[in-house]
Amino acid sequence: MTNPAFDAGELRSLLDGRWASVREKVRDSLGENELGNADDLDTESHRARTLEQLRLLAKSGVPELGFPVAQGGSGDQGGSVVSLEMLCGNLSLMVKSGVQWGLFGGAVVALGTEHHHERYLRDIMSAELPGCFAMTETGHGSDVQSLRTTATYDPVAREFVVHTPHEAARKEYIGNAARDGRMAVVFAQLITAGESHGVHALLVPIRDASGNTCEGVRIEDCGRKAGLNGVDNGRIYFDQVRVPRENLLNRYGDVAEDGTYSSPIDSQGKRFFTMLGTLIRGRISVAGTSGAAAKLALEIALRYADARRQFDRPGTGEEVVVLDYLAHQRKLLPALAKSYALHFAQEELVQALDEVGRGDDERAQRELESRAAGLKAVTTWHATHTIQTCREACGGAGYLTENQLAGLKADTDVFTTFEGDNTVLLQLVAKGLLTDYKDQFDGIGTLGLAKFVADQFVGAVIERSAAHSIVQRIIDASNKDDILDRGWQLKLFDDREAHVLDGLGRRLRKANKDNAFEVFNNAQDHVLRAARVHIDRLVLDALVAAVDRCQDPRNAEILDKLCDLYALSTIEEDKAWFLEHERISPRRAKSVTQAVNELCGEIRPHAVDLVEAFGTPRQWLTAPIATGAETSRQDIQRAHDEANPLP
Amino acid sequence: MTNPAFDAGELRSLLDGRWASVREKVRDSLGENELGNADDLDTESHRARTLEQLRLLAKSGVPELGFPVAQGGSGDQGGSVVSLEMLCGNLSLMVKSGVQWGLFGGAVVALGTEHHHERYLRDIMSAELPGCFAMTETGHGSDVQSLRTTATYDPVAREFVVHTPHEAARKEYIGNAARDGRMAVVFAQLITAGESHGVHALLVPIRDASGNTCEGVRIEDCGRKAGLNGVDNGRIYFDQVRVPRENLLNRYGDVAEDGTYSSPIDSQGKRFFTMLGTLIRGRISVAGTSGAAAKLALEIALRYADARRQFDRPGTGEEVVVLDYLAHQRKLLPALAKSYALHFAQEELVQALDEVGRGDDERAQRELESRAAGLKAVTTWHATHTIQTCREACGGAGYLTENQLAGLKADTDVFTTFEGDNTVLLQLVAKGLLTDYKDQFDGIGTLGLAKFVADQFVGAVIERSAAHSIVQRIIDASNKDDILDRGWQLKLFDDREAHVLDGLGRRLRKANKDNAFEVFNNAQDHVLRAARVHIDRLVLDALVAAVDRCQDPRNAEILDKLCDLYALSTIEEDKAWFLEHERISPRRAKSVTQAVNELCGEIRPHAVDLVEAFGTPRQWLTAPIATGAETSRQDIQRAHDEANPLP
Repeated sequence: MTNPAFDAGELRSLLDGRWASVREKVRDSLGENELGNADDLDTESHRARTLEQLRLLAKSGVPELGFPVAQGGSGDQGGSVVSLEMLCGNLSLMVKSGVQWGLFGGAVVALGTEHHHERYLRDIMSAELPGCFAMTETGHGSDVQSLRTTATYDPVAREFVVHTPHEAARKEYIGNAARDGRMAVVFAQLITAGESHGVHALLVPIRDASGNTCEGVRIEDCGRKAGLNGVDNGRIYFDQVRVPRENLLNRYGDVAEDGTYSSPIDSQGKRFFTMLGTLIRGRISVAGTSGAAAKLALEIALRYADARRQFDRPGTGEEVVVLDYLAHQRKLLPALAKSYALHFAQEELVQALDEVGRGDDERAQRELESRAAGLKAVTTWHATHTIQTCREACGGAGYLTENQLAGLKADTDVFTTFEGDNTVLLQLVAKGLLTDYKDQFDGIGTLGLAKFVADQFVGAVIERSAAHSIVQRIIDASNKDDILDRGWQLKLFDDREAHVLDGLGRRLRKANKDNAFEVFNNAQDHVLRAARVHIDRLVLDALVAAVDRCQDPRNAEILDKLCDLYALSTIEEDKAWFLEHERISPRRAKSVTQAVNELCGEIRPHAVDLVEAFGTPRQWLTAPIATGAETSRQDIQRAHDEANPLP
Repeated sequence: MTNPAFDAGELRSLLDGRWASVREKVRDSLGENELGNADDLDTESHRARTLEQLRLLAKSGVPELGFPVAQGGSGDQGGSVVSLEMLCGNLSLMVKSGVQWGLFGGAVVALGTEHHHERYLRDIMSAELPGCFAMTETGHGSDVQSLRTTATYDPVAREFVVHTPHEAARKEYIGNAARDGRMAVVFAQLITAGESHGVHALLVPIRDASGNTCEGVRIEDCGRKAGLNGVDNGRIYFDQVRVPRENLLNRYGDVAEDGTYSSPIDSQGKRFFTMLGTLIRGRISVAGTSGAAAKLALEIALRYADARRQFDRPGTGEEVVVLDYLAHQRKLLPALAKSYALHFAQEELVQALDEVGRGDDERAQRELESRAAGLKAVTTWHATHTIQTCREACGGAGYLTENQLAGLKADTDVFTTFEGDNTVLLQLVAKGLLTDYKDQFDGIGTLGLAKFVADQFVGAVIERSAAHSIVQRIIDASNKDDILDRGWQLKLFDDREAHVLDGLGRRLRKANKDNAFEVFNNAQDHVLRAARVHIDRLVLDALVAAVDRCQDPRNAEILDKLCDLYALSTIEEDKAWFLEHERISPRRAKSVTQAVNELCGEIRPHAVDLVEAFGTPRQWLTAPIATGAETSRQDIQRAHDEANPLP
């Protein structure tokens, strides 16, 4: 757009952040390759096309980012996550890439050892060896620890026997399985010398080089899905399939030739969660991609809303641009502000991933997992909600496939429940406390437990927020009690989080070994709220920190308004809590709504520039309603009406 | 299900209501015909199959319901609406039926006169003459009064010349246009003797009997959509297309041979809204169908949730049925209660349609339009939200096409913006006040205006609510201040409505001819709220009346709980308003949340029986997860685990 009220270059660079060069590289490689969305093809052609695109992408050098330097990669986990989210305009390709390089390749990197790396990673990077990540089973999706596939060691043959004991144990929704995958990382209960050691991962060939299914392996097609039909999801059954002992990904647990089990981690539970923890990148990628899809949807809806006119403005004979309606601003602009906030929170999360990857800090790892789970839940729900709103804001035009929103909606829909069901993710940490730390509960006094729960639950992350010092400085400097005062907003978020956690602690302390489930279950809405308000606060902190590092005063001013809008619309959404807990007065509650309306009006003239600043690759913006069709029709109509006034 | 805690037969009969025989007839005819969803076909085959199904349905006698007795119909408008909603398992067929019989046929009935009826209705009923309803244009969807197609009378040839002056005036999203339609009801600005008389409808042939496009007509295909791909939506352009004078649907406006215009209604605005008003049936059908689709989605999700298990219950070794989790109950059970409430509100609406159709009461017609607009908005949003929630509640299984939720979601999505954009619908009446009654504003004093606005806006409907006397009796009898006291709940809904309307009146009275747009636009969120709280109240009244007419005490008891859950979860959703306006105390606000949790627990054991009571045709329930696959897998797993414990 012309003449934005801010420095678009600096804003882009602030948004592109630490991995700006990766973002640029993907933008360029999209320009050179034919990676466009192929949703209009039938299922089989769509799958074939997506595989071709995967191979094109393999040649671009982008997938190597996340792999070890020793095998020709860049060892840049953060860059690898950022590169995936840039594929938001072709989500089948993004998910297929995520399966091949993030999940399948990532598991070989994280759970395997040197000889697995040397033997497989180059072929994985080049997509010569298409693979699957076979964790979920029909009977156990969220509760992975209970899955039923077995891998039983046979010391005579020095092989593992991988077996699906019944239908509920078949591997379900496995990407790359129905058509392309040749090998799978299979998660199974490892049994050796008559003893079970919990879930471990093994490499199991499922198809030969000609694409024939291997002996003992049966694969079914999951068929059509709501979206992502370029990805060939399938179900895999194993009937006593034998693989060499070396196929066990043995970083965290190994079986000697004679069947002796060994592991660097004694506790079975801890070992399991350590293995899962190394796979965190997939979850972070889903958060990033959901955020990117919401930005693209907002760009389509805002460009259309800035052009589309409907209903005469009384007394003028001119029709009103729909983005001038308060109701339309209300639909789209708080979502734009939240997209900014989530963008910076995601950037911090990716940096944390990068830092944790370089160290061996268990506490930092746990914080990373908690934050990734929370942000993944909040961002995927934001995407589902925002894309739905954008579809409705575009009326019938939004329903046509050509205008992209239908595809974005259908493709992103599954993100709220895969790579961890959102509701489960928000509960995981709290739930773990009730079961794993049950013994410790009894020994701790009333207040002690509340603090203990709070600390364990999310407290650690509170301490380590990257923006902590900035936020504290702003809170300390604040002495106003004005709703546009950042210190007041921050204090409100902080206080809500502390109060909710404290109350939750007090409820959970009533748990004993007989009533643990009931106490926890009755408090489940409270548990979910605790996780949500915590993430809200982290996200606000991230946006506040971004405003703080903004150099150009015009940019700082507009980001400041977005930050007000994010903070106040979040407070407005949860106004009932603030009133119920007498944190704000009824009069102030009304002024929050008034301020949100006013901020919408102030941001409205910059809305299109602000959404363009995200730098979504131009190749992804193909919707006719967002690329000039509406304006051109109006110009023709205006010229016609002037020449031929209605009698 | 076995042994429900209530009389399932009586509940079904209460729910089936006045048009029980129509519901039974459709249930039977589904059993006899092959009307199943054909979403798995490619676009062209899907369209062909949907046309075949339309013809099968034509033979069932069901479509005749809404047509005049004189042409062989039943003259039962209510039955016709009810029969359409019963098609909720094949929404392409429902929409294609709605286009053919409701919109196209309905327009010929309502806007045409005797000779149109005699000439066309039999062929429309039999689907021998497939037709289109060509109202919306690319440039004007919501603002129909401004559409740009012209129909200019040529007195020499005694013909109308129908013309699309530019691209924005092409007819857009027209169902039946891309493939099957042979005739269209075209809405155009009628011009005769050099004078424009506003929008009128004409019959324009678009294809001959062999399917060739008529001269001067150009048709484009809208292509793939998010859903409803069995319906062939297209764009129609007219290039000076000539039709005989008799093709004008001339009930509300006619042109004599010499070109003289005449109409029984003098005002152009009133004439336009009268014509639109006769087409209200389509909007009511969309509300009914959305409600029915939400019920089907809830049945799938509840049946799965009642079977699916995940995570061990501490200390038992048994996994927890997911519907036992509070968070899962919270997702599905308030939506079930709202589905009950909306069901009875829809039944009242259809009865009102039936009554208005028999009389000539202008005030009743206006009330019907207001209520239809509001219920359509609320029910379609309920469907979008509920089906999304059901999809997420079923995890990955909900994403697979075989489990139906993907299709229900995609197909119903457009309902929030077609047959009137929801946001526009909620504003229409209030907006009309500001423009049409502008003069009257100035002459009325401050308080007078508030009352005037309130009366005009929705007041009329308040008076005429079918449940009025029952509700008043309950309110009068109430002396308790208990949240489970129905009188207290009703008073809270009534009081909120009155207060919001009163406040809106006070804001709008500031409008004068210079600032009308700004005053209205700044209050737009307030306008939307006024409409919403009004509809909330109407819906609660309808459910209260249903509880009142329930004979079986066990049924009354369970409906009573559903009514509490609907009332209290609606209050909870808008808790901020009640607190902000000091209608409830913070302590009471907390007890509302607690009561919703407890009601969820009390309704949970009956959830599957309650959703089955809706009597959704069994043919529509095909999702494997809702028809036994999950239970059978668990049985096999349990037997296996008992025989082969993990070492």
